[in-house]
Amino acid sequence: MELSLVRETSPAIKLADAARDINETLDGFFVEYAHEAAALHPAYQQLWRKVHDLSKSGGKRLRPYLTLLTYQAYGSEDVHDILPVAAAQELLHFAMLIHDDIIDRDTIRYGTENVIGQYEHIYAPSLEAPDERRHFANSAALMAGDVCLAGAFELSSRASIDTAQHMMVRHSLWRTIFTVVGGELLDTEAAFRTEQGMVADAMTVNRNKTADYTCVRPLVLGAQLAGAPDADIEILKEIGQHLGIAFQLVDDNIGIYGDSDVTGKPVGADIREGKRTFLVERAYELADDTQRARLHELHGKKDLTHSENSEFCDIINATGALKDAQMRIAEHRKIADGLVDSLTITDGFKEAYHEIIQFTIERKA
Amino acid sequence: MELSLVRETSPAIKLADAARDINETLDGFFVEYAHEAAALHPAYQQLWRKVHDLSKSGGKRLRPYLTLLTYQAYGSEDVHDILPVAAAQELLHFAMLIHDDIIDRDTIRYGTENVIGQYEHIYAPSLEAPDERRHFANSAALMAGDVCLAGAFELSSRASIDTAQHMMVRHSLWRTIFTVVGGELLDTEAAFRTEQGMVADAMTVNRNKTADYTCVRPLVLGAQLAGAPDADIEILKEIGQHLGIAFQLVDDNIGIYGDSDVTGKPVGADIREGKRTFLVERAYELADDTQRARLHELHGKKDLTHSENSEFCDIINATGALKDAQMRIAEHRKIADGLVDSLTITDGFKEAYHEIIQFTIERKA
Repeated sequence: MELSLVRETSPAIKLADAARDINETLDGFFVEYAHEAAALHPAYQQLWRKVHDLSKSGGKRLRPYLTLLTYQAYGSEDVHDILPVAAAQELLHFAMLIHDDIIDRDTIRYGTENVIGQYEHIYAPSLEAPDERRHFANSAALMAGDVCLAGAFELSSRASIDTAQHMMVRHSLWRTIFTVVGGELLDTEAAFRTEQGMVADAMTVNRNKTADYTCVRPLVLGAQLAGAPDADIEILKEIGQHLGIAFQLVDDNIGIYGDSDVTGKPVGADIREGKRTFLVERAYELADDTQRARLHELHGKKDLTHSENSEFCDIINATGALKDAQMRIAEHRKIADGLVDSLTITDGFKEAYHEIIQFTIERKA
Repeated sequence: MELSLVRETSPAIKLADAARDINETLDGFFVEYAHEAAALHPAYQQLWRKVHDLSKSGGKRLRPYLTLLTYQAYGSEDVHDILPVAAAQELLHFAMLIHDDIIDRDTIRYGTENVIGQYEHIYAPSLEAPDERRHFANSAALMAGDVCLAGAFELSSRASIDTAQHMMVRHSLWRTIFTVVGGELLDTEAAFRTEQGMVADAMTVNRNKTADYTCVRPLVLGAQLAGAPDADIEILKEIGQHLGIAFQLVDDNIGIYGDSDVTGKPVGADIREGKRTFLVERAYELADDTQRARLHELHGKKDLTHSENSEFCDIINATGALKDAQMRIAEHRKIADGLVDSLTITDGFKEAYHEIIQFTIERKA
């Protein structure tokens, strides 16, 4: 009874509040190291400032939120103790996005120019040839991603947790990177590789590139830091798998059908790059011969027009693949919601999980 | 007297023995994660195996050696306790080389094809266009570097040291990465950037890209782990600065005048990429107008011929820049050797430092 009273005085943290705290933590880190970089050289300070600016231009802060919420749900009062750990997951995510944009040859992220796009301008006075400009802008982004990736380890070290927990966090960050890089490699190669046995299906990509890193690890990390029961940690892993797969299926839909004003990504980018998402994979399976031939012509077409983009969307819809994906999203959501109800946490926190599941599934960007 | 007897029973570790121990530690790490990667997908295992193979094809293991030697010099008997920390520095170095090759557009390292070169073959059956093949081979190398970079944090966690030391090592790895990436950015930009105040001189690059990461950090880390006196740590920092600068000046000479059969790097690569080393910077300063104009024509020339390469070398020599560089190397060596003699360690260990300084300066690759 007393426990439940204590918990009522500390209601579940809201996404907006968590995002504000995470942003402050990230800001502090970027300001500190932009300052350190200035002591090294103004050109290095410029890189840190650009990265800092871009970190403010978007991002839902879903990963750190899942960690903070779970930490609270298992009885830990002060989320500020672990803010650096939660923020480190966002910094790691940011590093991955910076490197992902190099691989995907994107210059736009969060509706604005990414590191590559910004550095193409910075280098324009020195480099006339567009290819050279792009190469060195990619190089700057490569280095920016490297410091953010390593920075995640450093940032997490500022948490007010004991040394055993620090060791656990370091290992968790490593496992996250090991898995997400594997998923990223499979995703990248799926767009072009053809040899038997060397191409992963979209669900293997989704599990490793998205579910583990976006949901499973953040949930489990919050639970471990709070000392949650093992049985609950196992359930949280399952929730993370289902929510994470649903997250990626929603992302695939947004990638094809999303409003570029809302998503901040160029129209048709995923189609142009030939991304083999589950949605596209299903469309190929369900298509008739004419549809399949046309999908094949348009998928990966570098100079895809707006009308070809619409045609591609219409075919995916006509094959029934979109409906199939939406059904699967609903199924994963239902399972995740059901599992939340079996956790040994208060109703207030169950409600908070249901809300974030809803937010994840119903988002438009 | 007793202390000195104990030390005589444990003579200073030799570079070859350290290299063997470091290689075993790295092998264990790569085998373990190639196995883990296989559970994810064969295509991910392939990446880990390629990286593992390349890790065996070269490298002097100078950085981990400096850590192990210093750890021993300050009275710590069993270097095996900190092998994972020493090996982590080599893994971090390997990550930086993989990313550096993307930036420098090199496909050869240690006289063999690097990750990029290997993946151009792997992707050849799927990708006909050379540009596409190179782009995705670069992407594979980008991801390989990411797992090695993060892997350095994980590998170091296996050392038999106390938790406070683990926290110190994590922070040291971060500072190493922060500094070396800054140096790498300045080095890269020096080849083409022109705006006032945004171009670093070669010595600023050398301090940050090489001296800190190759010598200062490895020496200080070994000393801190062994609990060396603060006064000695300050001297070791100075030794690291002088040895590290000398290391880079030797590297610049090898980059221009080295025998490509010995260095394992293509002839003229540094000239083609327009690297602004101290040697080249000095040559521009000392050159007469005719020499300067010709240096300018050849420096950064993508299709540099063998005879143009020889001509470039001859001009550098004729300006007196090579002689100047060699004089500076000799000065830094002399200072480093002198500082070694002021350390509070046994004569046997002083001798070992003199030997590794000699090796660093007189190497041909």
